[in-house]
Amino acid sequence: MTQLIQSISEIRRSVKAFREKGLRIGLVPTMGALHEGHLSLVRQSLEETDRTFVSIFVNPTQFGPNEDLDAYPRTLEADMEALSRCGAHAAFVPSADEIYSRDSQTWVTVEGVARPLEGEYRPTHFRGVATIVLKLFNIVSPDAAYFGQKDYQQALVIARMVGDLNVPVEIRVCPIVREPDGLAMSSRNVYLSPSERQQALVLSRSLAAAEGMIRGGETGVERIETQMLRILRTAPDADVDYIAICDPRTLEAVKTVQGRVVALLAVRIGSTRLIDNRVIEP
Amino acid sequence: MTQLIQSISEIRRSVKAFREKGLRIGLVPTMGALHEGHLSLVRQSLEETDRTFVSIFVNPTQFGPNEDLDAYPRTLEADMEALSRCGAHAAFVPSADEIYSRDSQTWVTVEGVARPLEGEYRPTHFRGVATIVLKLFNIVSPDAAYFGQKDYQQALVIARMVGDLNVPVEIRVCPIVREPDGLAMSSRNVYLSPSERQQALVLSRSLAAAEGMIRGGETGVERIETQMLRILRTAPDADVDYIAICDPRTLEAVKTVQGRVVALLAVRIGSTRLIDNRVIEP
Repeated sequence: MTQLIQSISEIRRSVKAFREKGLRIGLVPTMGALHEGHLSLVRQSLEETDRTFVSIFVNPTQFGPNEDLDAYPRTLEADMEALSRCGAHAAFVPSADEIYSRDSQTWVTVEGVARPLEGEYRPTHFRGVATIVLKLFNIVSPDAAYFGQKDYQQALVIARMVGDLNVPVEIRVCPIVREPDGLAMSSRNVYLSPSERQQALVLSRSLAAAEGMIRGGETGVERIETQMLRILRTAPDADVDYIAICDPRTLEAVKTVQGRVVALLAVRIGSTRLIDNRVIEP
Repeated sequence: MTQLIQSISEIRRSVKAFREKGLRIGLVPTMGALHEGHLSLVRQSLEETDRTFVSIFVNPTQFGPNEDLDAYPRTLEADMEALSRCGAHAAFVPSADEIYSRDSQTWVTVEGVARPLEGEYRPTHFRGVATIVLKLFNIVSPDAAYFGQKDYQQALVIARMVGDLNVPVEIRVCPIVREPDGLAMSSRNVYLSPSERQQALVLSRSLAAAEGMIRGGETGVERIETQMLRILRTAPDADVDYIAICDPRTLEAVKTVQGRVVALLAVRIGSTRLIDNRVIEP
């Protein structure tokens, strides 16, 4: 059974005991409301390390003032059952007070890869992400940490931070897990009404169309994006934040496809904001 | 003899070997040009830990565009001799390329305690300090790290960062070491001409005057600062950046002395900028 740990001192004691036995530690940072995407990270960690810790913390500093912090789904009981079935060693489930002191004054900021796309629409988001992830790394001191490609830019930002700050943690990025009909798994999918759930398929369809065009030899990004937009607009409640075809390492916009690219999009379906992406080889 | 280590991978190997034997590691981060102030930190680390590593790195990111990065004294041979005499285990002397990748994008910023005083006069200074210190901590992973009280605000900024980011390093702050006539030791003292060296005594004298007044029962900060300024102005080449009487933990300015305070000042003597401070108990 997965152990539930709430205090920093206890998780440090637990990790230290394993470390002294020479065991390799994996960390899967999550905000809970676990789905198969999260569990695929847990399984990857279980394969590659000796003990897997999963943090469950809905991090307030990565939500903007008008975002869904309060509404964000919290399903701790089901999460613990799912982790137990997988064989995770422990869940670290701290309170906000355990993580942030009232007068906390320190931020980790990433420029470059954190600036476009999500960085434009959620200006304080990646500062919150980088700061909490570094804190979790310092608390747990894992050998490896697991992130989903679903949050493509987040994974890049964390990898940059780890490289730039010499953090001794290996970052592993695992493939997107999708529902059978193509919708990328997300804790936010529960917000969707049945009609919105159906409309949400335009995200993965529009990425599949981009892939089809690029594999078919199309190199003009404007034409690809026009086609993606056309598909997104078939959903009456879709409101597009961005679509982009970018360099997969720098996230700089590409004008002509000449090598591997990543297509990314953020679309609001009704009041639910969804993101998805696809790495595409010409 | 103190070992000279230039690469990150080698210092990590060296620390790891000691750590596996259960030894406690101390780190003294410096910019070289070592004087008795630095060596007092080394001795403190030697007393409290099993192996002492001293980093010597003139960190470009903590210098402003018009500051003395190029002129900063570099005395590696003498530094290594001094460290050998003390018994430091190793000096980590990386190149700038070893520390910063060309496209580094990540900063650690501290608000609050980093904002006033040095933060006002050197707006990017503490961002550079916090970032390099965290990098060094991640590279060396010491149990304890040693800083001088001479850079009072720097020590506070680092302690905040370590607390806020849950960095598993104990921060030790050691007393200011002074020349027999009272001048706080600093690598920048070598810039002073003989006349400036004499005039530089106004810093410690003005702090001593503040202490005398507060111990004598004076509580009015305006009167104390007036007296400090009067002493500073006896030096014809002195140009005051700031004098301040502050809360020793928050660095908020104090108007009436009611408990322990810290008096801090930054004064340019000719073209040499000097800082000094004194913690004062009424």
